[in-house]
Amino acid sequence: MPRPKDPEGPRAAMIDSAISLIRRRGVAAVSFTDVLQASGAPRGSVYHHFPGGRAQLMTEATEAASSRVTTGVTKALTAPQSAAALRALADMLARGLDKHDYALGCPIAAAALGNEPGAVAAAGSAFDTLRELVAAKLVEDGARPERARSIALLVISALEGALIVARTERGLDTVVEELSEICRGAVEDR
Amino acid sequence: MPRPKDPEGPRAAMIDSAISLIRRRGVAAVSFTDVLQASGAPRGSVYHHFPGGRAQLMTEATEAASSRVTTGVTKALTAPQSAAALRALADMLARGLDKHDYALGCPIAAAALGNEPGAVAAAGSAFDTLRELVAAKLVEDGARPERARSIALLVISALEGALIVARTERGLDTVVEELSEICRGAVEDR
Repeated sequence: MPRPKDPEGPRAAMIDSAISLIRRRGVAAVSFTDVLQASGAPRGSVYHHFPGGRAQLMTEATEAASSRVTTGVTKALTAPQSAAALRALADMLARGLDKHDYALGCPIAAAALGNEPGAVAAAGSAFDTLRELVAAKLVEDGARPERARSIALLVISALEGALIVARTERGLDTVVEELSEICRGAVEDR
Repeated sequence: MPRPKDPEGPRAAMIDSAISLIRRRGVAAVSFTDVLQASGAPRGSVYHHFPGGRAQLMTEATEAASSRVTTGVTKALTAPQSAAALRALADMLARGLDKHDYALGCPIAAAALGNEPGAVAAAGSAFDTLRELVAAKLVEDGARPERARSIALLVISALEGALIVARTERGLDTVVEELSEICRGAVEDR
């Protein structure tokens, strides 16, 4: 749906449209023209806002999406214990999926799987940040730092994979239950 | 690269090309024309081989890819114990990634994330089959059936997610170590 009157202007509208399209189709299936049409931005302003062209737009869209995901994860991780925080995080992800009838994937995963090197690198930074957030929560709860980092990577990987499997099966509960158990174990092991 | 002389004929060549393109770009970025060009199949034969058009081609490509993955996983799972079998499975996946410089994703994940309902359903069946294979191995080793099914879903999800994170970080070792530990725990718990 075109949004020519986006209050933050065509630049923000293009980033928003790019994120939405990437989540639905993957990076390789989204052209500059698709983003222009979806955002209602005037074609003439494209190279004014994104002098680096499609590469810049895809990279900035990935960075903006990562920033939103990181904010959501940080908020979910304020729950008092790691296992509860993981549940809050999964609930946040499940709500996002359900709201869109499971048609939207994770924008960071889409960027990592895509054909734009700058966006792949931005996805890599996002995975690092998310891993550090989860690891820090586990350490705060009492897990050993090395073990926390290892489990945090499992948590991020398993959630990303569960979001894909959920496209065909719906629901994240089983995977989240297993991960919660692992987090509890790591905290109690110390 | 066109392969007009594929011994199994244009139909098999089109399926192979579709799988390769889906793994590189995702389903939404692959057109019938792309597959024709990559396979060297004559345009006139398309609706002879795939009367259901692109939908049929994408669905059959997903089924063929799933069958290959299932064969590989079945072979890896002949290793004597679940943790060793998981390591063999991960080694198989890592070899496949490394051989292609981490540019090829899992075809089942690509189908699940794509825009072709038949291929999404075929991906769902593939995830079910893989889950049952891993669960059966855990039960064979002594894990309780219900717990085995739960861990098997975690294993499949975590490996799919790890394949995505590996696009930006390379390597599956940390996640596989954690999963091996969980498998060992489930077997010893009984």
